[in-house]
Amino acid sequence: MAEELVFYSNPMSRGRIARWMLEEVSAPYRIEWLTFDGSMKSPEFLAINPMGKVPTIRHGETVVTEAAAICAYLADAFPEAGLAPPVEKRGDYYRWLFFAAGPLEMAVSLKAFGIEVPRERERSIGCGSYGAVMDSLSLAVTRQPYITGESFTAADVYVGAHISWGLQFGSLEPRPEFKAYWDRLKERPASKRATALDDEEMHRQLQAAKG
Amino acid sequence: MAEELVFYSNPMSRGRIARWMLEEVSAPYRIEWLTFDGSMKSPEFLAINPMGKVPTIRHGETVVTEAAAICAYLADAFPEAGLAPPVEKRGDYYRWLFFAAGPLEMAVSLKAFGIEVPRERERSIGCGSYGAVMDSLSLAVTRQPYITGESFTAADVYVGAHISWGLQFGSLEPRPEFKAYWDRLKERPASKRATALDDEEMHRQLQAAKG
Ligand SMILES: N[C@@H](CCC(=O)N[C@@H](CS)C(=O)NCC(=O)O)C(=O)O
Ligand SMILES: N[C@@H](CCC(=O)N[C@@H](CS)C(=O)NCC(=O)O)C(=O)O
Repeated sequence: MAEELVFYSNPMSRGRIARWMLEEVSAPYRIEWLTFDGSMKSPEFLAINPMGKVPTIRHGETVVTEAAAICAYLADAFPEAGLAPPVEKRGDYYRWLFFAAGPLEMAVSLKAFGIEVPRERERSIGCGSYGAVMDSLSLAVTRQPYITGESFTAADVYVGAHISWGLQFGSLEPRPEFKAYWDRLKERPASKRATALDDEEMHRQLQAAKG
Repeated sequence: MAEELVFYSNPMSRGRIARWMLEEVSAPYRIEWLTFDGSMKSPEFLAINPMGKVPTIRHGETVVTEAAAICAYLADAFPEAGLAPPVEKRGDYYRWLFFAAGPLEMAVSLKAFGIEVPRERERSIGCGSYGAVMDSLSLAVTRQPYITGESFTAADVYVGAHISWGLQFGSLEPRPEFKAYWDRLKERPASKRATALDDEEMHRQLQAAKG
């Protein structure tokens, strides 16, 4: 029997990245919607993820936290979906997954919160300068049609979600290559399905809160 | 013929993490020592890594940047070393690699630079609160002897390097479980070899600088 796949999320969160990936692998999953001030900080959930954050998944006995890790895990756990490169050819795959989860995420967060990295700290901080992060991201999305070559992989889900979000909220420079890359991804049925499902739940929760 | 493996580093940098991993897989590699204000910002190197940072490796035509990505890549590229779990069992492996490269790295950097995350931002910032990051790291190193179970993997190289560095420089809380975990790792011959080799080069460079 297939192991149960449980998805802990909130429709207004980075859980949307994991949901896109879940829809890409098209394995059946059960959702547990968590609230920011309530169930995310319950003792039961903190025992699973002491960060008290979503997305988190549980697949049988395996708990995975961190949106990027969830993308990489699901690609490997559901090989039929063909979303991970062969194991001996994962240079670009890991490079850009970790780049997005590390320096890109950090640089964008600091900028969003108005925190400037002093020039003399750029050498020691992992995200260096915001400009260097943008240049690296440009390299990632222009070298090949997709992050790892001719085919779409889980790295495109994660990097693509960062780019889509960053263009929408203005935390990324609106470089034409970022837009061109997102244009290559945005029509994926799994992405559209995930967005529609999360939007629906978001509206349901907003209605419930009102009334 | 085996593809050439080139390691771009500096002995006073996160390159030490990658060097430990290179010694673990025991593949032959050639080192290019880069200087912080010189060759790391040369047009040639920026073409390889627009961040202008080390560690970076080149394996044949494949360039990998980001210390965590280098650990994951080398574990897969040199399967004889047995440093990655089977592909279908990588939940803990990815979870803690991405946790260390994302929230842990960010929380520790912000603390080291005296940047406080305002309480109301902890919900949206990926690293949440420093305390939650410490609690998560405790979970990572106490559930099992190594990050993914009974055997040492590339995730232990990366998480272990964070813990060793953090205990040494005081950027991590000195929890007994962090120390106990590092005690399980520190006698690894590859770690000792990498440290000795980098120390030697560091002293050579410091002597040369003196004149
Ligand atoms: N590093 C995590 C960040 C996850 C995260 O910060 N999630 C937010 C929502 S977008 C959350 O659950 N916040 C709740 C809280 O911190 O209380 C990842 O990439 O998955
Ligand atoms: N996110 C990168 C950070 C690498 C990094 O910041 N390296 C520093 C040395 S520890 C560097 O090369 N600094 C040179 C510079 O930024 O000019 C990683 O984890 O590998």
